[in-house]
Amino acid sequence: MTNKVEPKTLPGFMELLPPDQILFNEMVDTIRGVYEEFGFLPLDTPTIELSEVLLAKAGGETEKQIYRFMKGDNDLSLRFDLTVPLARYVAEHYNDIVFPFKRYQISKVFRGERPQKGRFREFYQCDIDIIGNESLDLIYDAEIPSVIYHVFQKLQLGKFTIRFNNRKLLNGFFQSLGLLNQATDILRVIDKLDKIGKSAVIEELRSQNLEEETINQLMAFLSIDGSNLEKVKSLQNLQVEDAMFQEGLTEIQMVLESLKSFQIEEDYYQLDLTIARGLDYYTGTVFETILDDYPRLGSICSGGRYENLATYYTDEKLPGVGISIGLSRLFFQLREAGIISANKKTISQLLIVPMDKKNNDYVLEVASYFRNHGIKTDVYYQEKGMKQKMKYADRLGIPYVIVIGEDEVHQGTVAFKDMETGTQENFTKEVVLERLTNR
Amino acid sequence: MTNKVEPKTLPGFMELLPPDQILFNEMVDTIRGVYEEFGFLPLDTPTIELSEVLLAKAGGETEKQIYRFMKGDNDLSLRFDLTVPLARYVAEHYNDIVFPFKRYQISKVFRGERPQKGRFREFYQCDIDIIGNESLDLIYDAEIPSVIYHVFQKLQLGKFTIRFNNRKLLNGFFQSLGLLNQATDILRVIDKLDKIGKSAVIEELRSQNLEEETINQLMAFLSIDGSNLEKVKSLQNLQVEDAMFQEGLTEIQMVLESLKSFQIEEDYYQLDLTIARGLDYYTGTVFETILDDYPRLGSICSGGRYENLATYYTDEKLPGVGISIGLSRLFFQLREAGIISANKKTISQLLIVPMDKKNNDYVLEVASYFRNHGIKTDVYYQEKGMKQKMKYADRLGIPYVIVIGEDEVHQGTVAFKDMETGTQENFTKEVVLERLTNR
Repeated sequence: MTNKVEPKTLPGFMELLPPDQILFNEMVDTIRGVYEEFGFLPLDTPTIELSEVLLAKAGGETEKQIYRFMKGDNDLSLRFDLTVPLARYVAEHYNDIVFPFKRYQISKVFRGERPQKGRFREFYQCDIDIIGNESLDLIYDAEIPSVIYHVFQKLQLGKFTIRFNNRKLLNGFFQSLGLLNQATDILRVIDKLDKIGKSAVIEELRSQNLEEETINQLMAFLSIDGSNLEKVKSLQNLQVEDAMFQEGLTEIQMVLESLKSFQIEEDYYQLDLTIARGLDYYTGTVFETILDDYPRLGSICSGGRYENLATYYTDEKLPGVGISIGLSRLFFQLREAGIISANKKTISQLLIVPMDKKNNDYVLEVASYFRNHGIKTDVYYQEKGMKQKMKYADRLGIPYVIVIGEDEVHQGTVAFKDMETGTQENFTKEVVLERLTNR
Repeated sequence: MTNKVEPKTLPGFMELLPPDQILFNEMVDTIRGVYEEFGFLPLDTPTIELSEVLLAKAGGETEKQIYRFMKGDNDLSLRFDLTVPLARYVAEHYNDIVFPFKRYQISKVFRGERPQKGRFREFYQCDIDIIGNESLDLIYDAEIPSVIYHVFQKLQLGKFTIRFNNRKLLNGFFQSLGLLNQATDILRVIDKLDKIGKSAVIEELRSQNLEEETINQLMAFLSIDGSNLEKVKSLQNLQVEDAMFQEGLTEIQMVLESLKSFQIEEDYYQLDLTIARGLDYYTGTVFETILDDYPRLGSICSGGRYENLATYYTDEKLPGVGISIGLSRLFFQLREAGIISANKKTISQLLIVPMDKKNNDYVLEVASYFRNHGIKTDVYYQEKGMKQKMKYADRLGIPYVIVIGEDEVHQGTVAFKDMETGTQENFTKEVVLERLTNR
């Protein structure tokens, strides 16, 4: 006996058994289906890019997480998101692209984070972005959440809320308080509001040497409550004399109006003034999405508007808006929380079991018949006892089995067994097809 | 102005513009559809694995091509095929797998080859394999090409031939000539028969110090011609007294019989004694697939039977049979040869163009109506002139456009334009839907 290498995958790398893989693929198909329904075009950029290109902008934490290595003379990196490759793509193929450029990409990205429960080093992102040439109408800031609305409706994960905010409003507000330079630090504290509560946030703000009056104004801003329209009213009432604040407020009103046109049910979107999105990348509307019954999962789909996609590669002005579903993580969390579970162990709807090899012509004629009529059909060819053959169907959870022996061949029928009820009857294949397609 | 990084991809890494990407995805969908129709289960193994695991078997040329690097303390590699990960997967999840295990995987693999035209460093493989536990019936050697038959029928690339042979027959024949130790070298020469011709092959065999008598016997074997059954007859007539040869011959006959049952048209498969498949991996049936009108492309789909999938990871005996389509390369070659070309620039079937923003409610009601009825629908929201808006539809090749202005809103109609004929008429959305779905 030779020494064996232990067959194992690395921690932080998701690998699924077929039932979960089937479920995962169904989710991908649903997402892709909605993205295409709205006219987004598919992209598939390389997994490996030149580090010089991929890391043009990166730095700090991001750069540490990169899978970066030399191959020959080339300094290479694995993509860590789908936005940088999109920026490179649009800059590189600028002349071949029709703007506004609506693209989706569903691909794996790679981040060498310390693996922890539900955090993956290799994971799927499902991104949509709309890129304008020079300008991009604000209405696209409403189209993006409307796509996401349809995605999550179809995924049937229960009630969800798309929360949105506007960076101009936030920055304008900080500016009016003379806090623009501290904005990032303050936003980081505000981001914790849900987790640590109001008084802890106030403590932290005091430790940043903010004056009581300023803290009061901040907290008043953050406590604005009510319906979307009531919040807008309250924001107007603040009478903040800052052009950027007012621009943000106007954008919020326009996005709200468009969201209404987009026929999104009103309790599925909510203006949330505490949302900032860490990235300094976003410049206008920002989004997060929460499953109402599972707020602990955090945002399952985030994004926003950016002023310029590809400054590191081109002088062209390319404003855009986009959103991303981190599907591997979401899948893991939903499964852990019992919100989804694999209900199919296989994709075959029908298994054909020949009694013996003599009747292969007939067996394969029957198999072809069902396949040609769109029924996913497996055939069990191993020479085993009938019990073993049925066990295959049972373990794979194939709902219907056809047994074919001498009698069936002579009669031109099939023995059709419903695995759930256990009943078995002889029919022509045409009758079986009718039963399968009516169910 | 900051210095810009040149936005570019690495040589040998395929990246497509949307029209080609749409075509590529359609091919993937077709392949996946047929794989699933036959009951194959989806797998998606990690891109990155431990080098120790992935390279348990590799060596020589393969190892040189690997993208291998350290991250922290981990010695990592990118997968270079889908078979080694499958072996690791089956060994690792042995107890959770139902055998025979029919799986497909359509994923990118990575090989740092010297890039040349049509050779990629990152490319898609579309694999199917059937793995038995202890044993796997020979009939699966016919099911694999029958799946491939349906795949290439659906891809509509013209007439093709699945060529097959049997390694036992070959090895048995070499053994009978006392050439078993030189078999690999001789096979390498034989593989060139198509390229360099008969007399050059004989020259090369002479330079390997083969006796004239042996060369004659070899060439007689390789020249066996005729229909599949005539070839079998000729092989029988050789009266080779070698058990392995006879076993191979029996297997060939059984596979031929099964292929007939599988309802594959007879001129789509051909016993070809010159096929060996370089890998020492295969132990029985071997396959190649040729496009009859484009033999220059070489084999577009190859595989075979192996005695034991995962010897490096487990003592379990896991015989299997599988085949692989190298899709990136195939796609590139087909496109270069003009056999395929992108006939769609976008996936949207319909573009809605609002005259202005006032009527967004109506515009989005119309858009939702078509999307809900399965029509992929894009809306152009940019505030541009009508000419610019139409240019968007034109450049994207969207076949139908709906224009909505005040009149349409008041009449409850849409102005429906056929971009090919240029005709424009007002209809209700219901009438337009009927027209779109009937075409």
